[in-house]
Amino acid sequence: MSGGLAIGVDIGGTKVAAGVVDRSGAIVRRTRRDTPHRSTSPLVVEDTIVDCVEELLTAMGDPAEVVAVGIGAAGFVAADRATVVFAPHLSWRNEPLWDALQRRIELPITVDNDANAAAWAEHSFGAARGETHVVVITLGTGIGGALILDSAIQRGRHGIAGEFGHMQVVPDGIRCECGNRGCWEQYASGNALVREARAMIDAGSPVVADLLARLGGDRSALTGPFITESAHAGDATSRELLAEIGHWLGVGMANLAAAFDPGLFVVGGGVSGADEMLLGPARESFRRHLTGRGYRPEAGIVRARLGSDAGLIGAAELARATR
Amino acid sequence: MSGGLAIGVDIGGTKVAAGVVDRSGAIVRRTRRDTPHRSTSPLVVEDTIVDCVEELLTAMGDPAEVVAVGIGAAGFVAADRATVVFAPHLSWRNEPLWDALQRRIELPITVDNDANAAAWAEHSFGAARGETHVVVITLGTGIGGALILDSAIQRGRHGIAGEFGHMQVVPDGIRCECGNRGCWEQYASGNALVREARAMIDAGSPVVADLLARLGGDRSALTGPFITESAHAGDATSRELLAEIGHWLGVGMANLAAAFDPGLFVVGGGVSGADEMLLGPARESFRRHLTGRGYRPEAGIVRARLGSDAGLIGAAELARATR
Repeated sequence: MSGGLAIGVDIGGTKVAAGVVDRSGAIVRRTRRDTPHRSTSPLVVEDTIVDCVEELLTAMGDPAEVVAVGIGAAGFVAADRATVVFAPHLSWRNEPLWDALQRRIELPITVDNDANAAAWAEHSFGAARGETHVVVITLGTGIGGALILDSAIQRGRHGIAGEFGHMQVVPDGIRCECGNRGCWEQYASGNALVREARAMIDAGSPVVADLLARLGGDRSALTGPFITESAHAGDATSRELLAEIGHWLGVGMANLAAAFDPGLFVVGGGVSGADEMLLGPARESFRRHLTGRGYRPEAGIVRARLGSDAGLIGAAELARATR
Repeated sequence: MSGGLAIGVDIGGTKVAAGVVDRSGAIVRRTRRDTPHRSTSPLVVEDTIVDCVEELLTAMGDPAEVVAVGIGAAGFVAADRATVVFAPHLSWRNEPLWDALQRRIELPITVDNDANAAAWAEHSFGAARGETHVVVITLGTGIGGALILDSAIQRGRHGIAGEFGHMQVVPDGIRCECGNRGCWEQYASGNALVREARAMIDAGSPVVADLLARLGGDRSALTGPFITESAHAGDATSRELLAEIGHWLGVGMANLAAAFDPGLFVVGGGVSGADEMLLGPARESFRRHLTGRGYRPEAGIVRARLGSDAGLIGAAELARATR
């Protein structure tokens, strides 16, 4: 099937994941690199991307089958989809990424935000297939978001729509890395989960004794995935912490439902590994905070299906569809 | 200019405003009725609409110039744009308005939410002309909202997007008519303005003495327009109250900017009569709460231009464009 393949490159805060993706969304070949440290020149990140693409093309029996390359980048991508305005984990500041890559790669290139790419993958091949109005929420250390309305990604006037994690949910609330206070991602994210667990440990609460014992007494070893794992293993405090994150997740989703009226919420990212221990409380809180409940159809809330491959798959599919 | 005219009918909580609108957005003829009380049958509202349309057609020298009729209704209009799911001020519950009217009026009919109609008027002829990504906020007793992305009204999966007033801005905050707590419209609206002024009076605060004197001592005569008028006349407390509403307006707009990334906010409705006494504090609060400030272009915040005619004009223009 000539012309059926595209390469997707997902540039995250810690790793660059790349792969060759077919028309069904399957990854037929993959590679990865560490993300160059933010102190290095933008050129090093470009080299890394080009290196991944060349490796994948060389490894393919017939490179002509690959028709496009899509980049998903963790950062603000301008509305022209050529410039990365700002990337917190990289050295990019108004970086003309599209130009730079298009000079070095002979296939048509598409650049987008990584959350948009992941959402497009879920819409094309995953949990949001067949849905026209979807909000995708990625719960990692913070909250990533993307918006699909009438089956099209909405990027906003300047390309930076979907920053749901920085909607304020608590006036004068917890200080956020963005400089503001009370941002949603300070209450519903992996970071919030770890912060609350540490606060319980520091308060010397007896309910956290089991969790601390599981850590071998080492408070600094506490991570989001560890709490999720403990919850799966039956630890009541871990479950309670996840339910609290779920509560705030539901509050924010009810706000987004009032604004967008989506048919479906798709929740992905590391924290979504807690599955119903997170989504159950989120659904309950969502219903309780939804305006017009009883008079309106309620949006579904489901877990993302494509896991950490979503960004790579979506970047490839966007590139194939755009070229 | 044959085919150049359309009739718009704006059905609000207290009045039905109708008019013949030309291609430039000018109202060439108008009429109005009181909105039938919510205890009356849906048929009475239909009769009122048909009556307005017939009066306007009869009054036109050449009725053939009128090519379509647009209805803007204060309520949830379903995604099919034929059914009014729920209208708080009317007896409509799952009312098949489009069918009912199309049987009685021989011109093509379009039905939409009144806030969408007003936003479309501002986009076509008013403050948002030439803008592709616009959030329109109507501050009356509550908050009405509409969303234009890529120059298209976004209605959501079920037709009820844009309910910005019911996004929660204060956890466990003031109880809202919708049943929830802490909704944005409890902090930024005409009702909030009056509630806070009354609270100051009830607290016996000396700063409210001038305002109370202007009221002739009659607390019950206090209204939003009265406070705005007092502020224009120089009353410091009225200005302070408007600034407080402006503060909360800015908080909510920063949330919407994080989510949608609009190029422009247009603020209309009765409270917008306070003009810069409202919009100045709103802009300041917006900037302070905007995530990524310094790294992103900032959306403009301007007052709506078409006043209370916007709904009528927009309903007519939507009908002409849709037929």
